[in-house]
Amino acid sequence: MKESVIHVYERPQLRDPVFIEGLPGIGLVGKLAAEHLIQELNAVKFAELYSPHFMHQVLIKKNSVVELMKNEFYYWKNPNENGRDIIIITGDQQVPPTDSPGHFEVVGKMLDFVSEFGVREIITMGGYQVPELQGEPRVLAAVTHEELVEYYQKKLEGCQVEVIWREDEGGAIVGAAGLLLGMGKLRSMFGVSLLGESLGYIVDAKAAKSVLLAVTKILGLELDMTALEERAKETEEILRKVQEMQRAMLEQQMPPAPEEEDRGYL
Amino acid sequence: MKESVIHVYERPQLRDPVFIEGLPGIGLVGKLAAEHLIQELNAVKFAELYSPHFMHQVLIKKNSVVELMKNEFYYWKNPNENGRDIIIITGDQQVPPTDSPGHFEVVGKMLDFVSEFGVREIITMGGYQVPELQGEPRVLAAVTHEELVEYYQKKLEGCQVEVIWREDEGGAIVGAAGLLLGMGKLRSMFGVSLLGESLGYIVDAKAAKSVLLAVTKILGLELDMTALEERAKETEEILRKVQEMQRAMLEQQMPPAPEEEDRGYL
Amino acid sequence: MKESVIHVYERPQLRDPVFIEGLPGIGLVGKLAAEHLIQELNAVKFAELYSPHFMHQVLIKKNSVVELMKNEFYYWKNPNENGRDIIIITGDQQVPPTDSPGHFEVVGKMLDFVSEFGVREIITMGGYQVPELQGEPRVLAAVTHEELVEYYQKKLEGCQVEVIWREDEGGAIVGAAGLLLGMGKLRSMFGVSLLGESLGYIVDAKAAKSVLLAVTKILGLELDMTALEERAKETEEILRKVQEMQRAMLEQQMPPAPEEEDRGYL
Amino acid sequence: MKESVIHVYERPQLRDPVFIEGLPGIGLVGKLAAEHLIQELNAVKFAELYSPHFMHQVLIKKNSVVELMKNEFYYWKNPNENGRDIIIITGDQQVPPTDSPGHFEVVGKMLDFVSEFGVREIITMGGYQVPELQGEPRVLAAVTHEELVEYYQKKLEGCQVEVIWREDEGGAIVGAAGLLLGMGKLRSMFGVSLLGESLGYIVDAKAAKSVLLAVTKILGLELDMTALEERAKETEEILRKVQEMQRAMLEQQMPPAPEEEDRGYL
Repeated sequence: MKESVIHVYERPQLRDPVFIEGLPGIGLVGKLAAEHLIQELNAVKFAELYSPHFMHQVLIKKNSVVELMKNEFYYWKNPNENGRDIIIITGDQQVPPTDSPGHFEVVGKMLDFVSEFGVREIITMGGYQVPELQGEPRVLAAVTHEELVEYYQKKLEGCQVEVIWREDEGGAIVGAAGLLLGMGKLRSMFGVSLLGESLGYIVDAKAAKSVLLAVTKILGLELDMTALEERAKETEEILRKVQEMQRAMLEQQMPPAPEEEDRGYL
Repeated sequence: MKESVIHVYERPQLRDPVFIEGLPGIGLVGKLAAEHLIQELNAVKFAELYSPHFMHQVLIKKNSVVELMKNEFYYWKNPNENGRDIIIITGDQQVPPTDSPGHFEVVGKMLDFVSEFGVREIITMGGYQVPELQGEPRVLAAVTHEELVEYYQKKLEGCQVEVIWREDEGGAIVGAAGLLLGMGKLRSMFGVSLLGESLGYIVDAKAAKSVLLAVTKILGLELDMTALEERAKETEEILRKVQEMQRAMLEQQMPPAPEEEDRGYL
Repeated sequence: MKESVIHVYERPQLRDPVFIEGLPGIGLVGKLAAEHLIQELNAVKFAELYSPHFMHQVLIKKNSVVELMKNEFYYWKNPNENGRDIIIITGDQQVPPTDSPGHFEVVGKMLDFVSEFGVREIITMGGYQVPELQGEPRVLAAVTHEELVEYYQKKLEGCQVEVIWREDEGGAIVGAAGLLLGMGKLRSMFGVSLLGESLGYIVDAKAAKSVLLAVTKILGLELDMTALEERAKETEEILRKVQEMQRAMLEQQMPPAPEEEDRGYL
Repeated sequence: MKESVIHVYERPQLRDPVFIEGLPGIGLVGKLAAEHLIQELNAVKFAELYSPHFMHQVLIKKNSVVELMKNEFYYWKNPNENGRDIIIITGDQQVPPTDSPGHFEVVGKMLDFVSEFGVREIITMGGYQVPELQGEPRVLAAVTHEELVEYYQKKLEGCQVEVIWREDEGGAIVGAAGLLLGMGKLRSMFGVSLLGESLGYIVDAKAAKSVLLAVTKILGLELDMTALEERAKETEEILRKVQEMQRAMLEQQMPPAPEEEDRGYL
């Protein structure tokens, strides 16, 4: 496996689909939001992305079955006949931050793939770390093109959560939530990133809820949020177990670390 | 050398061969088990894998002879005419954990190669770190497909060591022991990973013995375990010498490490 | 995106253009100088370079618009009909220092591109860290070919800042400021690197001014320096915000770091 | 520049040439030995190797002239008409130890190149770190094939320095000094590695002398060693200056380091 591959299990006909991303990141906000969305909409998995840029390991799933690290594509067909369909991506991991070229490769493959289904609009979900929270987490929005601010603001009118639009320059969106928009823009796609305020370092159900309230408002959907807390707890437990086992194995495969002293390159 | 290459010294005709992996990892359990198996079965080396993803060094073997880091393929022809033959891989190292794409490349090459001999079933061996041991090390099992749990449980009936099958999700198998199963699964192969409980950080003959008891039970073989302890000691001594020399050389070829301060990317 | 790409918005006819580089580095001297030059000359952006070797993120610009990390090419047509035109490159970042091959790839692409416009001479700008400053920052010069020392010294006669030419061997110019000259030399290009003394770790308007005084003297241009201080402050503020947000996101996407202990490679 | 390139300035006709390597490593022993050999033999530079795997920087040489990092090939024609000619490689650096695939690529290119001149025998020179020295540094020898031990021992009879041949397994030779032999062996080349005992962390003229005494004994040459000490001092001074400047520049181009805490990969 020299580059990322997508295994396609079904090729649905989709109506002007919106592509929604929720991969692991700050507070697992995006991943949790995406999984909840998939569950509540009964979205259907139709493709899996495998990548040599993901961790060289398998996860142990229920009943002792192993699986490669992967990202998964789901689709949802809108029952409303004038409504738009949805493609959702979530998964086990993003490319590690030490491998920028790998990130570009994987995100490029995602965009290639969803283009085949006619995607033009992208919504990325994630967390936005803040030192403290006051009330419900707010959502930070950023768009691919300036004229979209008004477009999304109109759709978000009456949204239950506060959405922040920043006028001043500064800030960065790291990983797929950023790259999908940045690289999509170079392919005439457009979209918005919605990042929920989070204290980070936990599986943050509250931030995920805020983000989902904004996303569903934009899409004109209703979503039951009651199972979100429970899902967060399960996720946290699984994560803990994976990390425990993974850490021990990684350590024993390391080459000896040169001592941390100054030394010349030649 | 731009990608891994396999030098093939012989092309044996094998009968439905099982592919058994035992490469360095936690407690060197897999490597030790594989080497013992090779020795006791008098398995024959028939191919070597070299990779630019291995350490850029040679090892000094007996009588001052140097050799590139490598992995080695052995075969064993079952004297029982209804029995299945075996291919075993072991070697000096795995790709370092900082090079995930390298891991995928090497494991892909291994699978390509053993496919040429008709391999469909894979057994991977390794260690599984635990904080403390009670009695003989147990063996953690994981499979590529759910229906295999029953298949292997039946074969393991009466096995001298306790084999654990986990029902709940969580855990990861890092490196070749995991990837061979995960990537093999994408090629319609199947198999099991057997990880012996180990305190890690030693060359763990006890864990290797437990794993071998499970493997030989599955394969219907008998194996003398008496030489295992001795082999563990030799391995430990060689390792110590290699690391000593290697460390000094690595340090002196390092570029100067930027100081460990916070700084911007631009 | 597997390799760096240049999006070209215009193909100006340029007269024997000098290629001037000012990318982020010590004290942001080169970037600040380049941006000031662009602003004061009203240079025109005509191309953008995107690279999978840049950080896998988007920056949030004014009015919540996101953009991929990039480098930008500007041109300036000399109103003096005997004068030479200019191409300037600046941008958000350089390839990180952990990715040497990426640096060579990006700089190779830059040289390919400016060659299309007839560039033969290159001036690179940057900072040169010193422990303390006495008076105005001096400028350290280095050239591609020995005979150029005299050539540039003549052009620099009467320059307001002191330019240092070192006779003894020793020293290195890291990144694009060095590679453009080093790789350019292999393509029969020539040029000079001008590095302003800086205490580093700040956005250094004084060092940028010194460098610009030398560059404009060589080019026979006049430049108003009054806005330079103000620009430095703005840059510093934007930087601070980007880093804050970026750091949190990077941390949460990291794989678990193996513990910092000595361990064998096999 | 996507892979290493060799610029060839002359294509000498050589008589069964021996290829001698002395690149930077422990105590700079190999590099110092190679440079001394080149100087004393008046060897002629005929090719340069550039690599995207070397540091992304230029060195400032005498009179402010910059040059890419490189390795250099020299040849020496034996005036004795029955004698064998020599190719020597030395240079500014080796590929950093974090880039194993780069090491394999560069060493592969070297072997391709010297093969064009009929090289079959390789002698690599370097340092071997020891905690303390007793008397003159000894030289550790290792060979590509077992039968060469006797071959080289015979040639080394009467050598002024003690050459050590180890019978027991254990030890590693990192970098070009090891890889040239290991990869050469796969191409039917043969040779010996000669590593001088060194306390490391200095430019070690004594170890270089020991290695040269062994090399010249093997080749049947006489070499004046008086300039070796002086050369070591010069090298040390240049090194110091390069590192000082390089370090500051590297630091400022670093992306922000995620904090050193435990965290999950997903």
